Amino acid sequence: MNTAIVIGVGPDRGLGAQLCRRFAGLGLKVFVAGRTRESLDAVVANIEADGGAAEAVVTDATDECQVASLFDAAGDGLTLVVYNVGNNTPGRIADMEAGYFEAAWRTGCFGGFLVGREAVRRFLAGDSGSSGDDGAGNGGVATGTRGTLLFTGASASLRGRANFGAFNSSKGALRNLAQAMAKEYGPEGVHVGHVVIDGGIAGEKIFSRFPDFAESAGGGRLISLEGIVDGYVHLFRQPPTAWTFELDLRTSVENW
Amino acid sequence: MNTAIVIGVGPDRGLGAQLCRRFAGLGLKVFVAGRTRESLDAVVANIEADGGAAEAVVTDATDECQVASLFDAAGDGLTLVVYNVGNNTPGRIADMEAGYFEAAWRTGCFGGFLVGREAVRRFLAGDSGSSGDDGAGNGGVATGTRGTLLFTGASASLRGRANFGAFNSSKGALRNLAQAMAKEYGPEGVHVGHVVIDGGIAGEKIFSRFPDFAESAGGGRLISLEGIVDGYVHLFRQPPTAWTFELDLRTSVENW
Amino acid sequence: MNTAIVIGVGPDRGLGAQLCRRFAGLGLKVFVAGRTRESLDAVVANIEADGGAAEAVVTDATDECQVASLFDAAGDGLTLVVYNVGNNTPGRIADMEAGYFEAAWRTGCFGGFLVGREAVRRFLAGDSGSSGDDGAGNGGVATGTRGTLLFTGASASLRGRANFGAFNSSKGALRNLAQAMAKEYGPEGVHVGHVVIDGGIAGEKIFSRFPDFAESAGGGRLISLEGIVDGYVHLFRQPPTAWTFELDLRTSVENW
Amino acid sequence: MNTAIVIGVGPDRGLGAQLCRRFAGLGLKVFVAGRTRESLDAVVANIEADGGAAEAVVTDATDECQVASLFDAAGDGLTLVVYNVGNNTPGRIADMEAGYFEAAWRTGCFGGFLVGREAVRRFLAGDSGSSGDDGAGNGGVATGTRGTLLFTGASASLRGRANFGAFNSSKGALRNLAQAMAKEYGPEGVHVGHVVIDGGIAGEKIFSRFPDFAESAGGGRLISLEGIVDGYVHLFRQPPTAWTFELDLRTSVENW
Repeated sequence: MNTAIVIGVGPDRGLGAQLCRRFAGLGLKVFVAGRTRESLDAVVANIEADGGAAEAVVTDATDECQVASLFDAAGDGLTLVVYNVGNNTPGRIADMEAGYFEAAWRTGCFGGFLVGREAVRRFLAGDSGSSGDDGAGNGGVATGTRGTLLFTGASASLRGRANFGAFNSSKGALRNLAQAMAKEYGPEGVHVGHVVIDGGIAGEKIFSRFPDFAESAGGGRLISLEGIVDGYVHLFRQPPTAWTFELDLRTSVENW
Repeated sequence: MNTAIVIGVGPDRGLGAQLCRRFAGLGLKVFVAGRTRESLDAVVANIEADGGAAEAVVTDATDECQVASLFDAAGDGLTLVVYNVGNNTPGRIADMEAGYFEAAWRTGCFGGFLVGREAVRRFLAGDSGSSGDDGAGNGGVATGTRGTLLFTGASASLRGRANFGAFNSSKGALRNLAQAMAKEYGPEGVHVGHVVIDGGIAGEKIFSRFPDFAESAGGGRLISLEGIVDGYVHLFRQPPTAWTFELDLRTSVENW
Repeated sequence: MNTAIVIGVGPDRGLGAQLCRRFAGLGLKVFVAGRTRESLDAVVANIEADGGAAEAVVTDATDECQVASLFDAAGDGLTLVVYNVGNNTPGRIADMEAGYFEAAWRTGCFGGFLVGREAVRRFLAGDSGSSGDDGAGNGGVATGTRGTLLFTGASASLRGRANFGAFNSSKGALRNLAQAMAKEYGPEGVHVGHVVIDGGIAGEKIFSRFPDFAESAGGGRLISLEGIVDGYVHLFRQPPTAWTFELDLRTSVENW
Repeated sequence: MNTAIVIGVGPDRGLGAQLCRRFAGLGLKVFVAGRTRESLDAVVANIEADGGAAEAVVTDATDECQVASLFDAAGDGLTLVVYNVGNNTPGRIADMEAGYFEAAWRTGCFGGFLVGREAVRRFLAGDSGSSGDDGAGNGGVATGTRGTLLFTGASASLRGRANFGAFNSSKGALRNLAQAMAKEYGPEGVHVGHVVIDGGIAGEKIFSRFPDFAESAGGGRLISLEGIVDGYVHLFRQPPTAWTFELDLRTSVENW
């Protein structure tokens, strides 16, 4: 059975958890990684209740050893890795503590380096043909792909904006890293993609932290979790003769 | 039965024709438009042989009247329009005739304006709910979308490059037009997308015109038609709460 | 005496006219080109009153013959060409006449092709050393540059925006053309640059057409003519070992 | 007398040193900062020999305390700060140690945050009118600017590339930070700019480390130090009604 790692998993109605559930539904065993044991266990329970296979691995994405342990747990047959870590970190630069700026980079980019590096190492060490038989339990990955590595980006990845310097900087760092990796490992069969999520996601985070905004926004102003997950699945299934590096996602009413 | 228009259809093993066949297979009646009657008829025959519905409409995309007639032929229920017109037009600017530069724009951009404008007019005039019932024969378009308008782009859309000034200029013009339309009509339910095809397509054009290159390129160096069509279908099916404007597509070995 | 052509010259308190005056002040004989005889004559009179040399040439930038005549008038020693033609052309695509969209491209891009092509032809035909002696009357152009070709761009050059599709499309077309030419003719000693003016210019056009906006904007919200002209002069003077392709200009209070 | 800080100063025939000498020549007292005492002292000696004022301050740009001390040393009248730190750091991601990736970010971006933050704090705390009198010793800074903060970028700032992931990531992080700061502090009178240096610089570093390349490159293939410094001076002198955020610089023969 092929395996997947999704790191950056929180509440069930969040992007990380929904990615886990979808890919488990496609037949992959999903290693559900994040910082909060309870959240991970809930996601695993949901997947198992649906007949899927999953395992929770409490992991700090910015810790090199923990990242290595996570990949060791996932073992052979690794087919997909998603780096979904990193929160928006508002604040004016003049008022910002250095530790805050650094922490934004650690979660937004450095963890992406640790996870991305480990993913590529494992993909390249693996049997390049194993994921290509299109047989049961490979999640539908295309023949010829040795592994897919997807990063969650934001409109912040593409430019700087007042009051979001720390977030913009960390996301710009992650995007350039992802693009370098896409070019570096594409010819060796590793598909690296970057999904630009432009706007608020209709998930638990926004409903619990900004209930008024979510309310006033209504259904149409927040990006659908299912729609985002569809995008990741689409990239995962592309053949090496038609890979996408970057996909942007926003609602029909977003002002961009 | 919902309908689709694909304009820029040539040989069966080409992007336009394959788009027609796929969308016909999804249950849409496809209006197959291009300049060569024989090519269009062949595509229609193939679709009908597969049990689909299609109609050939010889159309010059740069002629306002012919574009209007094409849309009249397609009638009600229009759900999808693809603008796939425009050839690469190499040449140094210092040696270029003005008519050549203008012709590149007419096919590369002006036809896109004529077709895009007509598409939006028809989508907005239509019954906004009709395409959203997810019933038989709507091709799987998402609820809430009043119409999808997709443009074929290229890496040339994003920058200028020596020896390709006419092509780059026309594709840059088309991309900015597409982005303006995406922002202008997104809030009214029209999904406008732009697919950046970065490299040679594994279709009849390249095999007949550049057989040596195609041969030496081998299977992996040319972008798969099926993979590209998958991208258009993915955009077509996105819900208004998770639309993509731009998708890039290239092979795993492309140097970008 | 070296010569310059500035095309797209209107009222004296406008960018075209101010470019003419500045470059004349640097010792170049300036060919002042535009559609309105009176405006051109006024600019020439001002230059001559300041002791400079200039000549008015009524020219429609979109007419191939008139463009050739303009360059014939300028004769030998051509050192600088500025393409400053093209107006903002608002309007929604669904409501736009095809002729309006085409006219935006003709002035915004096609004229740039005609002028740019002619400029490159003349620069390359000229004596490559003539402009490099740093002697009297060469305007201070750097040694080794065979000619400088500058295009006036806008933030619209970089993206599409609702209600500005025609303008965005024409400016995107011009920018990709300019970039292709920069790469195509740079190695032959022709410096091609593109100036992105992001915002309203503190010139006669805005004061006469949008007096209320200009008033409320105050001095600081409109881009200074002198500051813009400084940018063109800076590009003109760069040596071939340190050329800029693109320069953006906006006020300190612009929201971008 | 107004003051400037240039951090990232090495050998005299390098960008940092040449920036110091030029701005000292314009009448600013320059605080010459870098890690190597001997290099800094040599630059100061050269400036003083030319009749200028300068002071060496050994500083590690990634150390918060040392950065604060540097700004304390510069004292009142601070007009210009240049962040010129950060080396190219090649290497494939799969083979890279985490400490190497982090170090690239520390010098490439984090130091830029520390220096940029301190610069903005000091500029905003200063007397906003002081730098605008255009009197003796202000270096020619424009009226109305409270301070200018310039970052040295590279083509790596704009995209990822195989074998340069660490460098690309750090420069992308710096660029988004700079753009956020430009938007955040522009309205308060602080001019933030980013200079994209696209190619090798004709300085001591390349001549000593890659003599064969420098030799074969010849004069025209390396970017002129003087030309780059001209660009920084141009940005420094722009009035708040015509500021540039980004300027690219390359030779006429660069392949881009």
